[in-house]
Amino acid sequence: MKIAIAQPNTIIGDCVGNIQSISELVKEAISQQCDLIIFPELSVIGYPPEDLLTDNALIEDQFRSIEPLYALSMECPILLGLALPVKDYSPKHCGHKPLYNSAVLLKDGLIAGYQHKTLLPDYDVFFESRYFQPADQWNVMDIKGIRFGVTICEDIWDDTPPPLYSLSPLNILSQQDISFFINISASPFGVQKYSHRETLFKNKCLKHRLPGLYINQTGCHTELLFDGRSFAKNKNGDHILELSSFKQDIGYVVFRDGDLHPFEREKTILPTFVSERAYLLQALEEGIKDYFIKNGFTQAVVGSSGGVDSALVQTIASRALGAQHVTALIMPSEFTSQQSIDDAIQLSEHLGNPYHVIPIESLFQLNCQTLEGVYGKTTFDVTEENLQSRIRAILLMGYSNKKGHLLLNTSNKSELSVGYGTLYGDMCGALSIIGDVYKTEVYALCHEINRHEEIIPLSILNKPPSAELRPDQKDSDSLPDYGILDQILFHYIEQHLPGKTIVEKGFDPETVKKVLHLVRISEYKRYQCPPVLKVTCRTFGKGRLIPLTRRLQYEWHS
Amino acid sequence: MKIAIAQPNTIIGDCVGNIQSISELVKEAISQQCDLIIFPELSVIGYPPEDLLTDNALIEDQFRSIEPLYALSMECPILLGLALPVKDYSPKHCGHKPLYNSAVLLKDGLIAGYQHKTLLPDYDVFFESRYFQPADQWNVMDIKGIRFGVTICEDIWDDTPPPLYSLSPLNILSQQDISFFINISASPFGVQKYSHRETLFKNKCLKHRLPGLYINQTGCHTELLFDGRSFAKNKNGDHILELSSFKQDIGYVVFRDGDLHPFEREKTILPTFVSERAYLLQALEEGIKDYFIKNGFTQAVVGSSGGVDSALVQTIASRALGAQHVTALIMPSEFTSQQSIDDAIQLSEHLGNPYHVIPIESLFQLNCQTLEGVYGKTTFDVTEENLQSRIRAILLMGYSNKKGHLLLNTSNKSELSVGYGTLYGDMCGALSIIGDVYKTEVYALCHEINRHEEIIPLSILNKPPSAELRPDQKDSDSLPDYGILDQILFHYIEQHLPGKTIVEKGFDPETVKKVLHLVRISEYKRYQCPPVLKVTCRTFGKGRLIPLTRRLQYEWHS
Repeated sequence: MKIAIAQPNTIIGDCVGNIQSISELVKEAISQQCDLIIFPELSVIGYPPEDLLTDNALIEDQFRSIEPLYALSMECPILLGLALPVKDYSPKHCGHKPLYNSAVLLKDGLIAGYQHKTLLPDYDVFFESRYFQPADQWNVMDIKGIRFGVTICEDIWDDTPPPLYSLSPLNILSQQDISFFINISASPFGVQKYSHRETLFKNKCLKHRLPGLYINQTGCHTELLFDGRSFAKNKNGDHILELSSFKQDIGYVVFRDGDLHPFEREKTILPTFVSERAYLLQALEEGIKDYFIKNGFTQAVVGSSGGVDSALVQTIASRALGAQHVTALIMPSEFTSQQSIDDAIQLSEHLGNPYHVIPIESLFQLNCQTLEGVYGKTTFDVTEENLQSRIRAILLMGYSNKKGHLLLNTSNKSELSVGYGTLYGDMCGALSIIGDVYKTEVYALCHEINRHEEIIPLSILNKPPSAELRPDQKDSDSLPDYGILDQILFHYIEQHLPGKTIVEKGFDPETVKKVLHLVRISEYKRYQCPPVLKVTCRTFGKGRLIPLTRRLQYEWHS
Repeated sequence: MKIAIAQPNTIIGDCVGNIQSISELVKEAISQQCDLIIFPELSVIGYPPEDLLTDNALIEDQFRSIEPLYALSMECPILLGLALPVKDYSPKHCGHKPLYNSAVLLKDGLIAGYQHKTLLPDYDVFFESRYFQPADQWNVMDIKGIRFGVTICEDIWDDTPPPLYSLSPLNILSQQDISFFINISASPFGVQKYSHRETLFKNKCLKHRLPGLYINQTGCHTELLFDGRSFAKNKNGDHILELSSFKQDIGYVVFRDGDLHPFEREKTILPTFVSERAYLLQALEEGIKDYFIKNGFTQAVVGSSGGVDSALVQTIASRALGAQHVTALIMPSEFTSQQSIDDAIQLSEHLGNPYHVIPIESLFQLNCQTLEGVYGKTTFDVTEENLQSRIRAILLMGYSNKKGHLLLNTSNKSELSVGYGTLYGDMCGALSIIGDVYKTEVYALCHEINRHEEIIPLSILNKPPSAELRPDQKDSDSLPDYGILDQILFHYIEQHLPGKTIVEKGFDPETVKKVLHLVRISEYKRYQCPPVLKVTCRTFGKGRLIPLTRRLQYEWHS
């Protein structure tokens, strides 16, 4: 039995377009005489469709779109992910939802089997109980008498601590005399997520003494980056096939003698190892690329300060879109050092980006004068700092409007966490590229880029970080050293630890208290920040629901 | 048996502060020799706590905070809303959540009963399956041998079409020989929501031939406005008590001879009727007031254009905060008519608001020149329109930063829907006051304000709407007449109807197509807009999850 696994790069809601990619991949499988081809979770609609699922028209569109697949399934059975209406939907139980998130087997022009998703994630960016009813039946499918069990994404994450689930669909399926198991997924990229997935899957193979196929969505959908890397493992948990990362791809395995095997042994080329940082850079690059392609844009503009954040964003964008497609605006104020201007120019020249130097002194003076006409002479404070940042945003957005370039946001996660940024100033942009990357990691990624060649001028990496919004300003005037800050933030945001526990890890109590306070009081800024490319388990945006108006006694005291 | 119903104005997460209000109300009930006092859903934590519920520290804080109530419950039993940990939480079922949303009865210093919420809403701004496990037991509570059933908010909305639930907790409870039923709620304000609630409750009374008590949260939590208006009904469904709207309040009824009765018949004063529009105005006013109080601000600033939107926002803010606490910045460009300047000045003078006139011509010229230095001479387009809007935003935010005034956003729902606004320009602000109010309703609210006296100058209401960002611009150059536009938007957004169905209602197909297209392509702007005071069933913001990157074939064609 020959099996194809396929990961198309879909666009959410574009059933017709997605089915075109799917059909082409099926035809490829047919030409290879496959007995089954498998696609990811919600293959036709794309994941996550969110509230689009409440439109009946989308579900109808899904079913209309798959019609050509029935004919193709005469030649090669197709397993794909569909949103299935709950039959005779009249709510039989409290909170019954009208859809299932299902894997459907098309064979000989008919629906030959289906399995609904059992474990519905409701944490982070997942809101599946909002839309779906969980499975309460677990049936085996078969092709030519070979029996297999199908699970959907979260269904195999039942062993992950902390225990969210104890019901294990795979435990149930594996007791029904199956020859292998399948998991169709839409599992977003995260740093270390791939190895997490792979270990988890390997443990399932070993536990059940079964080979398995893991088919993951690929391509980026605004915040969520899906890295694909669909794979197959034999019953020893050995990797026998892996598809590309972030690209549409198809690959083949054979089931014989009770195990999965590479299709042609000599062709089992597994991807070469890339470092975690190189992979993170790739993910950010793909995030930009797909956002632009899928939304119909080709050109970006970046505010280039001569600092490390904009340098990293500009470099990744150049890789994603091509050097000529990224324009840098360098906008010095009276507080910008000549070194920063030189560094910014040198970066654009290294990268081959068009750039413009636009001094903002006169705009700054005129804005200050205008405001002083209202509130009189005052001492220089955060108002004047923000003014500079907002003047730059106006110019960037003006350029964006006139030229049709999308503005890329350059805020990093450390800044976003503590509110060290200007709303409607440097917090502007269509997409935040490094809003889920802490400052210390921003440096590390720059060094990774410079591994073989000085692309980002070393002077950018070696000078102390500064917003350059007042004379001799340094980030360290307002914030703890990033080495300390980022660790505290990681414990608080990603690890979800209370202040007291963070102090017990050896951090200075006053510093921890200050950092947590800054995170708390800047919630309102993040409410209006652009969508952030998600690369960690806890990203600012949709997956983090925090009431803006609140008062927490316990955040520090407990 | 004498019963108190009480609605404290809580702050989310502030268990200690909330318990102070609750304790004072309990003491009042004790002084009135009550046999029971009842508080709303999640009375101690406040609703909705969203992801704060994932902090164990919050749950611990809740239990620590209620300790003083045990002593008070020796004198008067207390029924209140708590988040209860699922006992021996180790997930026994798939997707088991660690908490219940419960009503807990404290009596004689002990927990004497509890009832978990059964029907967990997962639509709109509700995400309860993300946090809570539904009830699977329905037990009757009693005081002095008088038996009653307790439900929590959504639990009594089982009859609402479309049928989301068929399990009815009240059907089960009413078969257990109870004398009355209670619903503790946190039900947000909406236009017509109160009469919806009241009718629904009345029908429950009549269906089960039972008197009932409805206790609703009061006070505003950023987007969500809770209007309180807790009430009691006898078994005929007659209103016998109603508490204030939007204010902390307590009231009393007596259970005797098998029915609920007013405590002192001569004192049964029910609230006087206010029109729907007057009530909507009150809701918006309370939304501002509580946002400022609970976040520690007293002063607001508004960009006053001489148009109807800013006039309405400025007027409501003056009512909410006091005339001296609202400053208007009037910022004419070369395209602003003298009439608009005069109107804006007259409005501030009518209201008694401090105001400043700040011409922006020179800032506009300097910005244009600066940008032309980059991209050369071009023809006037949307870039220059946006520039004016963004220059105003810079000045407003500068004023806000220097003086500590919060900027109020003045976008209306029609504009937000079709993207007729400038991101980082007029879309700025800490809070959107009328972002859930269509333009035609904005006019109606202004007329309501002017009912007895011309507060908003008539000239503002009588001139054709214009953004005044280019010569002789009118909104009607770009958009259908608001009378038509708002109806199409209402059908599409609130009623969730497809384009085809809207056309069948008699609207011009090309107009409908254009409007739906505008809504679709402006999703990215709304992603970054301020929190919007929610007054309809479908508000832009948290309760509307739409993927930014998507392609929908069916939106028009189906």
